[in-house]
Amino acid sequence: MSDSRMLRQLKFVLELDKLKQVMRRNYVCGGSRRENSAEHSWETALTVLLLAEHSDVPIDPLRAAKMMLVHDIVEIDAGDTFIYDAQGRTEQQLRETRAADRIFSMLPEDQAREFRDLWDEFEAESTPESRFAKAVDRLMPMLHNYDTRGKSWREHDLDRGRVLQVNSKIGDASTTLWDYAKSVIEKASEEGLLRKD
Amino acid sequence: MSDSRMLRQLKFVLELDKLKQVMRRNYVCGGSRRENSAEHSWETALTVLLLAEHSDVPIDPLRAAKMMLVHDIVEIDAGDTFIYDAQGRTEQQLRETRAADRIFSMLPEDQAREFRDLWDEFEAESTPESRFAKAVDRLMPMLHNYDTRGKSWREHDLDRGRVLQVNSKIGDASTTLWDYAKSVIEKASEEGLLRKD
Repeated sequence: MSDSRMLRQLKFVLELDKLKQVMRRNYVCGGSRRENSAEHSWETALTVLLLAEHSDVPIDPLRAAKMMLVHDIVEIDAGDTFIYDAQGRTEQQLRETRAADRIFSMLPEDQAREFRDLWDEFEAESTPESRFAKAVDRLMPMLHNYDTRGKSWREHDLDRGRVLQVNSKIGDASTTLWDYAKSVIEKASEEGLLRKD
Repeated sequence: MSDSRMLRQLKFVLELDKLKQVMRRNYVCGGSRRENSAEHSWETALTVLLLAEHSDVPIDPLRAAKMMLVHDIVEIDAGDTFIYDAQGRTEQQLRETRAADRIFSMLPEDQAREFRDLWDEFEAESTPESRFAKAVDRLMPMLHNYDTRGKSWREHDLDRGRVLQVNSKIGDASTTLWDYAKSVIEKASEEGLLRKD
């Protein structure tokens, strides 16, 4: 095992630190500050492990958790794109692909390939694991929004229909979680945390 | 699958959010702010995956990464204990055990057991995975310290001997990583980032 292999790995690990400075639009519970993408990745990885049984089809929970650990690394260069920002999302794919090219290539070739494949799979939503990971990636900010009395929803003047539409991806992976998510969105709408459509 | 099972899981997941407010003694790279235990857990989980090949004995990387995701959850109640704080560490075990009793019992019984067993294993350092996880838990703050010109070391007036002693745990899991860690500590000492002993 060459020293340079280990040094490349450690350089990459320190590069990851930058994800702690990427701020998302949603808030931590309680609403005291915005959430960063590193802590969001931790939370969603654990959530995937705990909720895996609710996937409509069987998934490998650890594989999906690994995907969650990796899914936002590209934001180190590309920044966070708000899921309700249609224009930002058009350019997002290009920015994130460039970021993936640069960041993952810092790793030794075998690990670069492994991480890139995992991120590509997440983006393509081509497997049960990636669909479940995407569902949890939607579910958590939605629950944080409800917890903070719709703080981020209200800041972006979102209505019930738009929130239902964007979060419907949850239903691609889990009928149970989507039923629950819909009930939270309806409650939020009734409580005035979301604009009526 | 009962609704109440899912609701318990989701309540636990929102409880996890509190770990984002637990601040550690070390800083993020660049030194702009302290690191919180949630983002530290994310970083160390990925590091374990990437460095697993450097374990002196073969380990299951995903199992070790899962352990890293879980290892600091008890800090939600018990707070972070600085690894160089001998007095704090005496009481730490009691505080953390109480925390584990409360927090993990929020989960359905099977998952409570699974997470508690994983945390107990980490604490006991009884397996190759837990020893490697402990090693990475030491390695990362050490690298952050060097990256920030010894910011946290200097704040706590630490000397070379103490830092070598506390980090020697890295050597219980990986000769390669410990050799590298020692070289960083010696360099830090020569550069005046650590007090000479």
